[in-house]
Amino acid sequence: MSVKIYDTPEVQNFLKTVAGLDQAGGSDRGKQIIHRILSDLYRTIDDFDISADEYWAAVSMLNALGQVSQFGLLSPGLGFDHYMDMRMDAADLEAQRTGGTPRTIEGPLYVAGAPETEGFARMDDDPDTAGDTMWLHGQVRDTAGNPIAGAKVEIWHCNSLGRYSFFDQSQTPYNLRRTIIADNDGRYSALSVIPSGYGVPEGAPTDQILKMLGRHGERPAHIHYFVSAPGQQHLTTQINLAGDKYTYDDFAFATREELVVEGKRLEQHAEAKKHGVDGPVTEVVFDIELSPTDADELQERHKRARALESESADSQLAATATV
Amino acid sequence: MSVKIYDTPEVQNFLKTVAGLDQAGGSDRGKQIIHRILSDLYRTIDDFDISADEYWAAVSMLNALGQVSQFGLLSPGLGFDHYMDMRMDAADLEAQRTGGTPRTIEGPLYVAGAPETEGFARMDDDPDTAGDTMWLHGQVRDTAGNPIAGAKVEIWHCNSLGRYSFFDQSQTPYNLRRTIIADNDGRYSALSVIPSGYGVPEGAPTDQILKMLGRHGERPAHIHYFVSAPGQQHLTTQINLAGDKYTYDDFAFATREELVVEGKRLEQHAEAKKHGVDGPVTEVVFDIELSPTDADELQERHKRARALESESADSQLAATATV
Repeated sequence: MSVKIYDTPEVQNFLKTVAGLDQAGGSDRGKQIIHRILSDLYRTIDDFDISADEYWAAVSMLNALGQVSQFGLLSPGLGFDHYMDMRMDAADLEAQRTGGTPRTIEGPLYVAGAPETEGFARMDDDPDTAGDTMWLHGQVRDTAGNPIAGAKVEIWHCNSLGRYSFFDQSQTPYNLRRTIIADNDGRYSALSVIPSGYGVPEGAPTDQILKMLGRHGERPAHIHYFVSAPGQQHLTTQINLAGDKYTYDDFAFATREELVVEGKRLEQHAEAKKHGVDGPVTEVVFDIELSPTDADELQERHKRARALESESADSQLAATATV
Repeated sequence: MSVKIYDTPEVQNFLKTVAGLDQAGGSDRGKQIIHRILSDLYRTIDDFDISADEYWAAVSMLNALGQVSQFGLLSPGLGFDHYMDMRMDAADLEAQRTGGTPRTIEGPLYVAGAPETEGFARMDDDPDTAGDTMWLHGQVRDTAGNPIAGAKVEIWHCNSLGRYSFFDQSQTPYNLRRTIIADNDGRYSALSVIPSGYGVPEGAPTDQILKMLGRHGERPAHIHYFVSAPGQQHLTTQINLAGDKYTYDDFAFATREELVVEGKRLEQHAEAKKHGVDGPVTEVVFDIELSPTDADELQERHKRARALESESADSQLAATATV
């Protein structure tokens, strides 16, 4: 089939009707955006001669993705999360908001409401004998280099099997998830286990799409952060542990040079010992620089459906199918 | 935020990486199509300055649509099903395949495996006292006007509450769903109930999107058909009953002038009486003309996930949430 009908007045008028441009109600912005997206998709169907079989296979794939709540997993795989970061970086540059630790993607696996402690947290509620002990610490500073006492440091990461609590219901709720309030010197520290890298679930819709693109779905070992303080820009970031096979080949495109951290293997560590860890530890140091802002909206993380943060219990249960 | 980064080499190169254009494996066609779709979406994000909040609201909406398997319901609402029909019509014209009853969209509510009878079927397994009796019949002919004996006529429609068996589990399986093999004179007939129009479920994701566009989600009363015979093009169509408020304002864009049928109210009907219906009936006549073809692929309906036709039991159960 080689017909081209996209440019006909019939199709162009139909698109206006479909997008509700001739209707009084609804959202003007929503209509304009949907009109653009539909126009692009209709043109793609025409240009690529997409068959009914292909079209309906795509519809089935969309249903399958939603059934296991994987749009939030596919999204970074298709680069959207990183693209949004690139746009926010460009906006910072334009507004001369320079300095500060680079942002990177959040990912879909944050859970609100983790236990909060001051200065230090023991993060491993569950025994994880396969994983090395991690001594994770750093200082939160402003762009002038002054410590930010009371900065809120939210940390979440997976276990040595590459699994996150809440989504992996075999773990204690909030295992490897903590909120640490930085001490008077802006310092935070945690004892935890070294996380493993992991891949998207084999055979799941996201995996099928990546395979169609000839790509893998692996992530290097990494640790997620939200960091915030009054008068400072909210920071969403991750650190990647150096030396992982996928450190510079992350399917989610989260890696940034400044965020790759070398773990240091130590036979003993005085601070860790204070907290009862006598054996060897891997020390991971991550200092964080926040960038000042007066704008309230920049001091908060953006809105997004997050487990135990939004009102929808349904989507939270469905979300547990993602991993 | 007014930054424009889409046209930078950084973004253009990133898009190639994301679509796997630099990878050896996968599907070349799949990569090209995904590259186009992502490019269009990235540009839309830039052009409309789509915020992180807006982006993540859209991702949540996609998950919500999939969780209730509504991409197949949203699809006709966004005109895709009708657009695919327009393309097939144009292809028929180009190939000089003229004549035949017009096609129109299938919709997402077909269920495979309905009981098969010869010539006549009683379709209403369940009592439906709110609905009038329908005497539905017609003749299947070729483009020369000759009857097609043995043509397969598959009919499905909703009850007087606008609900379909299988998806509405309070109904007997296959209520108002039948396969009728046309008799030696190409004729088929059925006793059933007059279906009602209906709307997409109030408040469901599809309804939310239509409301954003200032549109309604109502369909006029209609009856679905698949009609096939060896050597003839497979026909997917519907008839709309005349006089419905939405006959010419169908949210799914299925209405075609040639497919609007006037029901005729009769106090008695000799044929219906033969089958035990003594009271008044509404007679609906729909003759069908099939168009000849040698191409095997045109003699079959296109592939699509259909209840009890595909292998995935999961998606079938999820599909029951659509109505």
